[in-house]
Amino acid sequence: TNKNPHRLAAGGQDHVLRFWPELDGAARRALAAELCHMDVDEINRFFRRARGDGGGAAAAAGLDARMEPVPRDVLGSASRDRGLVPRWESRGLAEIAGSRVAVLLLAGGQGTRLGVPYPKGMCDVGLPSRKTLFHLQAQRLRRLQQMAEEQHGTACHIPWYIMTSGRTMESTKEFFQKHRYFGLKKENIIFFQQGMLPALGFDGKILLEEKGLRHGAEEQLLETELAHNGNGGLYRALGSHGIMEDMERRGVHSVHVYCVDNILVKVADPRFIGFCLEKGADCGAKVVEKTNPTEPVGVVCRVDGVYQVVEYSEISLATAQRRGSDGRLLFNAGNIANHYFTTAFLKDVVNTYEPQLQHHVAEKKIPHVDITTGQLIQPEKPNGIKMEKFVFDIFQFSKKFVVYEVLREDEFSPLKNADSQNGKDNPTTARHALMSLHHCWVLNAGGHFVDENGTRIPAIPRLKDANDQPIQCEISPLVSYGGEGLEKYVKDREFRTPLIIDEDGIHELVKNGM
Amino acid sequence: TNKNPHRLAAGGQDHVLRFWPELDGAARRALAAELCHMDVDEINRFFRRARGDGGGAAAAAGLDARMEPVPRDVLGSASRDRGLVPRWESRGLAEIAGSRVAVLLLAGGQGTRLGVPYPKGMCDVGLPSRKTLFHLQAQRLRRLQQMAEEQHGTACHIPWYIMTSGRTMESTKEFFQKHRYFGLKKENIIFFQQGMLPALGFDGKILLEEKGLRHGAEEQLLETELAHNGNGGLYRALGSHGIMEDMERRGVHSVHVYCVDNILVKVADPRFIGFCLEKGADCGAKVVEKTNPTEPVGVVCRVDGVYQVVEYSEISLATAQRRGSDGRLLFNAGNIANHYFTTAFLKDVVNTYEPQLQHHVAEKKIPHVDITTGQLIQPEKPNGIKMEKFVFDIFQFSKKFVVYEVLREDEFSPLKNADSQNGKDNPTTARHALMSLHHCWVLNAGGHFVDENGTRIPAIPRLKDANDQPIQCEISPLVSYGGEGLEKYVKDREFRTPLIIDEDGIHELVKNGM
Repeated sequence: TNKNPHRLAAGGQDHVLRFWPELDGAARRALAAELCHMDVDEINRFFRRARGDGGGAAAAAGLDARMEPVPRDVLGSASRDRGLVPRWESRGLAEIAGSRVAVLLLAGGQGTRLGVPYPKGMCDVGLPSRKTLFHLQAQRLRRLQQMAEEQHGTACHIPWYIMTSGRTMESTKEFFQKHRYFGLKKENIIFFQQGMLPALGFDGKILLEEKGLRHGAEEQLLETELAHNGNGGLYRALGSHGIMEDMERRGVHSVHVYCVDNILVKVADPRFIGFCLEKGADCGAKVVEKTNPTEPVGVVCRVDGVYQVVEYSEISLATAQRRGSDGRLLFNAGNIANHYFTTAFLKDVVNTYEPQLQHHVAEKKIPHVDITTGQLIQPEKPNGIKMEKFVFDIFQFSKKFVVYEVLREDEFSPLKNADSQNGKDNPTTARHALMSLHHCWVLNAGGHFVDENGTRIPAIPRLKDANDQPIQCEISPLVSYGGEGLEKYVKDREFRTPLIIDEDGIHELVKNGM
Repeated sequence: TNKNPHRLAAGGQDHVLRFWPELDGAARRALAAELCHMDVDEINRFFRRARGDGGGAAAAAGLDARMEPVPRDVLGSASRDRGLVPRWESRGLAEIAGSRVAVLLLAGGQGTRLGVPYPKGMCDVGLPSRKTLFHLQAQRLRRLQQMAEEQHGTACHIPWYIMTSGRTMESTKEFFQKHRYFGLKKENIIFFQQGMLPALGFDGKILLEEKGLRHGAEEQLLETELAHNGNGGLYRALGSHGIMEDMERRGVHSVHVYCVDNILVKVADPRFIGFCLEKGADCGAKVVEKTNPTEPVGVVCRVDGVYQVVEYSEISLATAQRRGSDGRLLFNAGNIANHYFTTAFLKDVVNTYEPQLQHHVAEKKIPHVDITTGQLIQPEKPNGIKMEKFVFDIFQFSKKFVVYEVLREDEFSPLKNADSQNGKDNPTTARHALMSLHHCWVLNAGGHFVDENGTRIPAIPRLKDANDQPIQCEISPLVSYGGEGLEKYVKDREFRTPLIIDEDGIHELVKNGM
């Protein structure tokens, strides 16, 4: 019915067909398909609500005064509650062994900012193994299944739900197929597609990216910045693609939701899952400590007693700089887009709460095709809005919300940008973060590194200059998920770099006089 | 007497004259001058002690078990003791007003790693004002003097002792002269030169950098890495150049020693000085919190009950990773080469303790001229040693040692390297650190920034990509030393960037349609 020009006309959006006569067959089919997924009445309703209430800015204005930090009893910390971590881990592994844990990957992001024409998960950041992000995550799942099976003696699997956007679906599926699902069972990998919402002009008219529509308007961009990874469009997609039913059919109780771009991500982290289970939580957020007030990261906190993520751009500097008596930032629970949900909670969200979620409205400069001249306009001022929902928007509906703090160097290094001068969050920083972590694993398991003269290299090596590499060291996830089980490979042994340990054993890449 | 070839021969070091016949007049004069400062017997004695005891490595081996963190009662913290900071600051300002405070700058470093052929202090990192590091430091001293005078109604001055190396002395002095001492009184700036120690082969023979000697052998390199900034050669130089007498003659009681390369350095920081005075300390170290176990920074701690800096390369990963019950790193007092000494303590060091200090011995690959062939050798393995003393080596002699912790973003951004891919501690990071800090100052004083459309920019702006600039904002040290006094310029006003505030007022650099 949405394809029906009358419906478009009735909704005042029939200008999207303005260039129909000029389109070739393929473009027409693409446009028709896009319109098919579009509910004009709903878009218009969203627009009126977004424009009408104007409450966003007003609500945010008083935000600082209403924010409270996460109380200690809601917080589990890998650094402050070290004694409890083994218990959480074994609880989580038991749950995995019972096949009651699933992971849900937000993988709609294209590699535009990375400068690659394919989905981010297909990026190879230049590790010795040349594994891609998808590959690493798949192998971590395999290793976890193996650990759970070994400890509990039962076969298990972790279903992997992968949400793509319209533009990344085909290439993502092809990539997994080509790599034979990285050794995972095909039936345990479920791809589904997020919805779309077009960008609108200030007059409420849909903006055309090209004559055949296609605006860069996933029903929300997966990652615009560190702070709002994830996608509130997720919850509609879970409903419209029958994902909740699939989870129930498989007996899934706990879901770990994460974003594709973090090279260190501990998929289905048994410690995080075990902690949330112990606490009886229906919803949880994994965070890292924010230590610099002006770091652009959203923080988990309470506002009017309700949990939410407050974005870095929403608070005043004074609030960002507030410190507790221990000298730490008061609002230090940095969101890294790693969440825990029970299936029951997710189901309530999909069925009941999602429609209540307000869009975040961002005024932007949106390049678009002028509807009268057909020319592409690059606006110099904001000319329209994008309406977004974020994954963390549902925290407010949780009845038992918890926060789990982990160490940044162990778990978080996102891939956002192309390599560049003084860059952050790029392939080089991601590669270095992973190799530095694996270097630590080897040392902690009793191994040592030696230089070309056989002299031991200090644990924290002296870097000659800023371009110096960290110790080249990569451990396959099939060998170790989080540093465990390496003693038998490395204890009291000395290695030259680069060192690779994988399922085939230890490889020291000897340079032949090069 | 050292020029005497017989003395060189008796010490087994007369090979340094091997190429004398080939040298031209200028080279001969330079070599003679270098030999003049060289005590061959002492060098040989140092070598025997350095090689003989072999205690360095053995002592370090047990280090981990003997290390204890800085106790809370020894620590003052800008973030944890905020209530006390105003008192410390006013105590320090009173001391400055009484002309009892001096600063001592370690400026021997050449800009080799920076890729510039002049001393580091002459570097311009590309600030809107194009001020150099020396310029910023000089203006901070002027502002402090002015603040102290305003508060106490007495004229005062802060003597500035500047230690250069043999290679940087002339160009440094010329630079200050050319800039008319940046408005400071010439008689309050005292240049002096650190001593030299040559690099030695494993056989104890002096290694020649070129046929006319000149090895890169300041009696210690000022900065090899973040961790061992500073120079133990300082204490001998203080003695041999009569600096202690000069300090006593001027009535100096407190000395702030710092390194040239930190663009944010708070020279003569009244808070730090006031804290040390309140505590009755003879020796103090300013530190920043180390938050990542593998960050290459030395930490202040106690070893066998005595304070010292333990270098990052000296400890095991397990020790670096140890955490207290609060989740923080146990050894987190990161050394940033900012020290406090009383004149009395320094005098004891110079007269009594310095000769007791052992050299740190580093085996290195030292390029040198082969003594038989005259050819330049680039060794592939370590071929000799450099003997170093560090400024912080004297902490052990303190009778009342204290530690003062400050926020990294407020006070520490060193300039070590040239700009490069994913680089750290380079001109770009230094420039950004200063502008980010000044941006915060403006916001905290009630100012606002707006974009080209007049819309307010959030306190923590959304950066489009990793190459995006921070808000362009620079406040002259003559206007504000640490963020104070800006309300009258900025409160409730809106600014476009770049914004410069200096002694001539407010400059918004309007881009004429560019």
